[in-house]
Amino acid sequence: MTGSTDPSLLTQTPGPAMTVAQIAELAGVSVPTVSRVINGRSDVAPLTRAKVEEVISRHGFRRLKRPANRAALLELVFHELAGAYAMEIIKGVERVADQNGLAVVLSEMHGHTPGRGWIEGVLARRPIGVIAVFSGLTPQQSDQIRSRDIPFVLLDPTGDPGHEFPSVGAANWSGGFSATRHLLDLGHRRIATITGPHGMLSSRARLDGYRAAMDATGTPVSPELIYEGSFQTEDGLNHGRTLLGLEDRPTAVVTHNDLQALGLYRAAAEARLRIPDDLSVVGFDDLPLSNWITPPLTTIRQPLTEMAAAAANLAVTLGRGEVPTHHRMELATDLIVRSSTAPLHAQV
Amino acid sequence: MTGSTDPSLLTQTPGPAMTVAQIAELAGVSVPTVSRVINGRSDVAPLTRAKVEEVISRHGFRRLKRPANRAALLELVFHELAGAYAMEIIKGVERVADQNGLAVVLSEMHGHTPGRGWIEGVLARRPIGVIAVFSGLTPQQSDQIRSRDIPFVLLDPTGDPGHEFPSVGAANWSGGFSATRHLLDLGHRRIATITGPHGMLSSRARLDGYRAAMDATGTPVSPELIYEGSFQTEDGLNHGRTLLGLEDRPTAVVTHNDLQALGLYRAAAEARLRIPDDLSVVGFDDLPLSNWITPPLTTIRQPLTEMAAAAANLAVTLGRGEVPTHHRMELATDLIVRSSTAPLHAQV
Repeated sequence: MTGSTDPSLLTQTPGPAMTVAQIAELAGVSVPTVSRVINGRSDVAPLTRAKVEEVISRHGFRRLKRPANRAALLELVFHELAGAYAMEIIKGVERVADQNGLAVVLSEMHGHTPGRGWIEGVLARRPIGVIAVFSGLTPQQSDQIRSRDIPFVLLDPTGDPGHEFPSVGAANWSGGFSATRHLLDLGHRRIATITGPHGMLSSRARLDGYRAAMDATGTPVSPELIYEGSFQTEDGLNHGRTLLGLEDRPTAVVTHNDLQALGLYRAAAEARLRIPDDLSVVGFDDLPLSNWITPPLTTIRQPLTEMAAAAANLAVTLGRGEVPTHHRMELATDLIVRSSTAPLHAQV
Repeated sequence: MTGSTDPSLLTQTPGPAMTVAQIAELAGVSVPTVSRVINGRSDVAPLTRAKVEEVISRHGFRRLKRPANRAALLELVFHELAGAYAMEIIKGVERVADQNGLAVVLSEMHGHTPGRGWIEGVLARRPIGVIAVFSGLTPQQSDQIRSRDIPFVLLDPTGDPGHEFPSVGAANWSGGFSATRHLLDLGHRRIATITGPHGMLSSRARLDGYRAAMDATGTPVSPELIYEGSFQTEDGLNHGRTLLGLEDRPTAVVTHNDLQALGLYRAAAEARLRIPDDLSVVGFDDLPLSNWITPPLTTIRQPLTEMAAAAANLAVTLGRGEVPTHHRMELATDLIVRSSTAPLHAQV
């Protein structure tokens, strides 16, 4: 029997499955190294990882005291609980939790680094795993999480996901590229973009995709075409007022989320510009509302629910002591063409 | 010291506070009766309740084994996790949980009665309390919850909240009345309405408010003006197509939530009717998006976050063994006038 094929056997069959100490001995490595492999960390040399994984796949792995030690809980932590973005993520985590007989504990950070009380709460609850939608932990908090052997997965990481924890994100660069390429294909050249906060890598990747598409057609990118926002509806309204007031105003805008696009709709209405006749707009996310606003929004679909489900599955897999196939994933983004974009020649 | 004034003393001070059995003896009632009063149930005769409450307010109440017996969790259960409505509620519960050092366990029913597995999960987790946003439990499930002494609060009850469990709702009738009255004041007489599902009392109350306002001005309500929906965006689109196609089409519509209004915007755009020039629309809920769609939506604000916070506070209060001031609450709704409604004389 190779314990790695059937997850349920790994933790339940006491027979051939081995403890961390036994695996370490057989693989000729230290116990912390085995633990690092099992918990999906990347700071293990490839050869060492291969040795450990071979032992595990031959003998199976038995996590000692697991059932007594862990509650049937998955923790989902947001930096901010708001809007349809968060709801799409919650649905994905709920789905996987449900399939695995787990309950979801939901919490919110009111900044980008969880406060002190939060981490003690998590440690006390002893969940199967933690899925975090925020930039990161302090080094001290990372140590705390690691020392308790609680799998920690970053979802849609806004900072550098690094090699410390497993992560699930979206193909942001490709999304930014496709959005811009779509507008270029429609004949637009003066294309503005409204980004997320500076320093958020997901947004930076989208901006780089925009630049790459512009460069690919030899279209100049001037600084007055790039506006920094914070993923809020207000970004679209405020920057929209500015950019639509330019003497040589853009004929199209790539936003970094659907809410910004919604704010831009308002700015266009104020300026008595029609979408898509006078202005083409592309969103990002494909939240449910993007299909319902008038005109329906052309956008880049980010599979938030699937990303959340993948992160939850990763946490559950690690929580079972299994070795997941991938520790860092980027799910594909898709261009969804609706009615907010039109060929340039149709414009005045 | 009267234990009822400071919640922390009630459960922590072993001195003068009394057990349920002691309270029952002093009040001359049975132990289950004391338990019913403590858990906010209404099936207690007023005089009996008064006797029990007097003993509690004089001596304080000590819940035996509470700390060992309960986890620092609040359970929040939705019949369906979707959209901004659910997010507003989550925020309110999170706020109160945070203030009380509790974590929120979020779960979703895929129908209106929770499945078998759910209730066992709740009982096993031993939360401080349960807040449920769905129509109800089976009698058997009610018994299970009661027998474990877990406070159970209904939020925005869709069925008859009854006298069995404490509940927090909104002033739905007043909301329906205000929405309709606003349109009547603007000179509209042919006012249609799109409702929620038949049998949902919250929606029935809004419809009754609509009828009452129409009756108050002697305005006839014909059956072709009332359309049953299911709180979905599609209701507004589909019924909107029908009612805007009527020979004597309505000049205004009262919807039963903001999503329906959003669908109606689409139907109006398809029919090349302008809002509010050709059609006035009133929503219900005041979700964040209602301020951002074009034109911004006139709507009835339902204080979902405050309702959720009130329900969570009620659950926490009951979980502490205190007697809350109110067991059944309806929070006020408000008319928020934006740009989707206009006087009739401005129309063609």
